[in-house]
Amino acid sequence: MTTPPVTDSGLPVTAADVHAAAGRLAGVAHRTPVLRSRTLDALVGAPVLLKCENLQRIGAFKFRGAYNAIAQLSAEERRRGVVAHSSGNHAQAVALAARELGAHAVIVMPKDTPRLKLEATTGYGAEIVHYDRYTEDRDAISAALAEERGLIMIPPFDHRDVIAGQGTAALELIEDAGPLDVLLVPVGGGGLAAGCALVAAELSPGVRVIGIEPEEGDDTYRSLAAGERIAVPVPRTLADGQAVPQPGELTFAINRRLLDSIVLVSDAELVEAVRWAYERLKIVLEPSGATPLAALLTGKITIGDGPIGVILSGGNIGAEQFARLITEG
Amino acid sequence: MTTPPVTDSGLPVTAADVHAAAGRLAGVAHRTPVLRSRTLDALVGAPVLLKCENLQRIGAFKFRGAYNAIAQLSAEERRRGVVAHSSGNHAQAVALAARELGAHAVIVMPKDTPRLKLEATTGYGAEIVHYDRYTEDRDAISAALAEERGLIMIPPFDHRDVIAGQGTAALELIEDAGPLDVLLVPVGGGGLAAGCALVAAELSPGVRVIGIEPEEGDDTYRSLAAGERIAVPVPRTLADGQAVPQPGELTFAINRRLLDSIVLVSDAELVEAVRWAYERLKIVLEPSGATPLAALLTGKITIGDGPIGVILSGGNIGAEQFARLITEG
Repeated sequence: MTTPPVTDSGLPVTAADVHAAAGRLAGVAHRTPVLRSRTLDALVGAPVLLKCENLQRIGAFKFRGAYNAIAQLSAEERRRGVVAHSSGNHAQAVALAARELGAHAVIVMPKDTPRLKLEATTGYGAEIVHYDRYTEDRDAISAALAEERGLIMIPPFDHRDVIAGQGTAALELIEDAGPLDVLLVPVGGGGLAAGCALVAAELSPGVRVIGIEPEEGDDTYRSLAAGERIAVPVPRTLADGQAVPQPGELTFAINRRLLDSIVLVSDAELVEAVRWAYERLKIVLEPSGATPLAALLTGKITIGDGPIGVILSGGNIGAEQFARLITEG
Repeated sequence: MTTPPVTDSGLPVTAADVHAAAGRLAGVAHRTPVLRSRTLDALVGAPVLLKCENLQRIGAFKFRGAYNAIAQLSAEERRRGVVAHSSGNHAQAVALAARELGAHAVIVMPKDTPRLKLEATTGYGAEIVHYDRYTEDRDAISAALAEERGLIMIPPFDHRDVIAGQGTAALELIEDAGPLDVLLVPVGGGGLAAGCALVAAELSPGVRVIGIEPEEGDDTYRSLAAGERIAVPVPRTLADGQAVPQPGELTFAINRRLLDSIVLVSDAELVEAVRWAYERLKIVLEPSGATPLAALLTGKITIGDGPIGVILSGGNIGAEQFARLITEG
């Protein structure tokens, strides 16, 4: 990747990029609903606005970024195709976005990817290249494919167009619900948080954007404290969508400037939040998608009485695991 | 109850009553989202518009009717209070609506009501009167309470204001999504179907309104065929919200005029629909709330290529049962 242009703000992506992404996504991504719960408002002591990206196409916000990236490729690049490695939501996001845009997609997935996720990805017409996650390096495999076949790599978060695309979730939330005092965003690689923080700073001046990480995947928390990108051991957490060992370069450059802080939640708190969303909101959240709700329900966020925006980022979780989480305890 | 006035249309409730109810509910009930699924559109071959009343306050459409009825009581009547008998969604609906309107609510519930439903109802401040469902008659108990304490009875469906309130679900759907070719509505006592059919006939002329019943609770199906209200044995069906043995007088008078037909679905088809909504829509439906989706997924509805509205009526289902339904098979 060539070095991205740095804008006037000194950041590699701007709020204007998020607005441009929204134009590309109009009529393609769902404008997901903003749900309210009086019970939650009463518990928290302020109005809470829940942006339901679990109700997005492919069941997660990831479609926004993948589509915004692939939509900007030339006709020739699309003909050659794109490549991504993921066993999770990014795989389906790239596969679906590529199909919508007439591009060929190659997804590099571990051999032991759950059948449902595999089928969802092939269902969108993607070609799967398997690798052994214990003996092979997915980065090397993807890079070799890109090189040999001239495929364009679509990274899961550390990419300007991906960051701008993910930010459209907060753009829609603020357009629909008005300015926010606080915005809570899950942090994995940091692309969603970065994009959302950029546009929130523009549309809701003075907003505190707080990133939420699982305790066992606190790489951005540590990196912000250290003032540089810190790598942690591969996280073991229920929040598999946030099991990222190190923040991205671009995402960290943005998040260190724009995030107010990071709040950590435990796996037990995530289970509670998933169950609460099931019982009270009647929606399905995957643990990663429930991190901000967990932070709210446990009282870890210091708030005033102004509106709190929450990005519920995804709902892709196998039925067996979901059944276990809602009936535990 | 005195005999209701019969309007010019010859029906006991009019579309104008539904509009008036919408005015009362504005800012009180959630304007629930209309979800789309491209996968569902492709399966069905037409655009499907899912009105998510599982995301309504108390988790079901029932709040609309209860609130619309209690809101029209005089200050003196509200001071005396209201009474309802239900172990399900109507109990919570009356309890919450009464609290919102400053009325005392007495709910007559079986002694063996599940703890969660009991707590939800007392949580809204209602007084519970228990009865033994095997030896006592809830109608007699409620009538005696109404008589002794001057309480106003709020029936679950066979009441003009309840019917008008439930119809606001279809009113919002058509306002938000435009005219419909077909509207699919679950039928229990028939209040939701009647209210929705009234307003759909007005706002979407030519619409076919199809009621969906569980096979084992086909009282409205049989009644329409017979041209009079038929009672069936107390239905044993997963769709407990539709386990009603006989259509209401008022609801049947409306539904026999305005429903195109009734389609029946089996318990096995309901399980499939609940699981499909979990996997593909990321929402929680109770079996009764999934009846129209089941009818669509099984291809039981004859459709053209015009828009199909679907009322997903509720999402109140215990975690153990939901876990079982989504992992079965």
